[in-house]
Amino acid sequence: MRRIHVIGIGAGDPDYVTAQAISALNDTQVFFAMDKGDAKDDLVALRRHICERFIEQPGYRFVELPDPTRATDVHYEQAVSDWHAARARLWAQAIEAELPDGACGSFLAWGDPSLYDSTLRILDRVAEHVEFEFDVIPGITAIQALTARHRIPLNDIGEAVLITTGRRLRDEGVRGAAVVMLDCECSFLGTPADTRIWWGAYLGTPDELLVHGTVGEVGDRIAEIRAAARERHGWIMDIYLLRTAD
Amino acid sequence: MRRIHVIGIGAGDPDYVTAQAISALNDTQVFFAMDKGDAKDDLVALRRHICERFIEQPGYRFVELPDPTRATDVHYEQAVSDWHAARARLWAQAIEAELPDGACGSFLAWGDPSLYDSTLRILDRVAEHVEFEFDVIPGITAIQALTARHRIPLNDIGEAVLITTGRRLRDEGVRGAAVVMLDCECSFLGTPADTRIWWGAYLGTPDELLVHGTVGEVGDRIAEIRAAARERHGWIMDIYLLRTAD
Repeated sequence: MRRIHVIGIGAGDPDYVTAQAISALNDTQVFFAMDKGDAKDDLVALRRHICERFIEQPGYRFVELPDPTRATDVHYEQAVSDWHAARARLWAQAIEAELPDGACGSFLAWGDPSLYDSTLRILDRVAEHVEFEFDVIPGITAIQALTARHRIPLNDIGEAVLITTGRRLRDEGVRGAAVVMLDCECSFLGTPADTRIWWGAYLGTPDELLVHGTVGEVGDRIAEIRAAARERHGWIMDIYLLRTAD
Repeated sequence: MRRIHVIGIGAGDPDYVTAQAISALNDTQVFFAMDKGDAKDDLVALRRHICERFIEQPGYRFVELPDPTRATDVHYEQAVSDWHAARARLWAQAIEAELPDGACGSFLAWGDPSLYDSTLRILDRVAEHVEFEFDVIPGITAIQALTARHRIPLNDIGEAVLITTGRRLRDEGVRGAAVVMLDCECSFLGTPADTRIWWGAYLGTPDELLVHGTVGEVGDRIAEIRAAARERHGWIMDIYLLRTAD
């Protein structure tokens, strides 16, 4: 039986890798790699750095998985679903061709495989085409990296916290505390000026950026810093915690 | 200047400890330890196991911090706030007495220090009494452990997820996806029977329990398993993800 690990490698800092992930890395013969657009070079470099640093016996190899194009002319959920189906077919072919029976392959996920990551969802569909067993290794998410670097609690005492997206923040607003991910449009600018924001980008890396204050005080500054950083790096990964005043 | 690390040691499995946490453990001369009620013996054992396993040079020591009693006759938030103030005074005394200038002390937090943990909030108040610098080392939360062990994504595609408490679930209900923590009353039993639940207890330990299904199918069974496990161990730490059908 083929074995697969889905390994969360943490959100940026190679030191976020867990002892469990290190064991799984060392157990792996084939790393299946998905690469995304503009961030590609930096992500590939980080992944290779993690493997070189933590794997004791060389001999593992990388298999690059081609990334089907996501349709832009259909509804978002449908486009994502079609894209997952196309990926699942490509992954199943790659697993059959590259992973001998009894061998172990791994998928590396930024942060944690459960959070805004499609690996597990696609693997569920891969299982329709090819047989394997798998486990999931949790990783430090960008949420933990954000709060650790700002040295703040995520939740107020006994309070709830919403994990949401930029799109939903624009559509639904916020009341209380919310962590916003996947926001390319500085949607925090639409929240009340007295909303507190703790923002971070490239968390855990030498390029890390941190800003906190109220949206009225620092919102425009974050938007400027964000645009400049994105221009400089060619990509950006950022996240923020909002807490409304009411 | 005294230095302090607040180290997230992950939610149960010693293998959840990160490379960054291992460095911080090895940098520490004095571990300040808070112990909580019935779980005390098992938590102390896990903490000592982690130190023994990952610290290369013996010579570190533990300082037990007494735990002031929490008032039960006042409003919850007020009781917690008073209790934090009392703790902050005790912690400041302990840091002054036990941590020489230039030395490094650490607080170990279950899971991640940002999530339903009071260490950072209390340290903010300790800083009113004694001077120190500190950093925060993120850890694998029970949320990541739950989704990894169930091998599921936390969020549906593009969806939000609420992190909340048993108390709030009872007061406010749920719509969509919610992770519930700090629930000693099986509050999921009050949700619609077609709500899906992924429940876990003692995550990442040899005593781990996992159940999933709809509340109608498995709700009563979880309540029974939970009560029996709590009786057997003398304590329980559990968490669950709910997803409503609508």
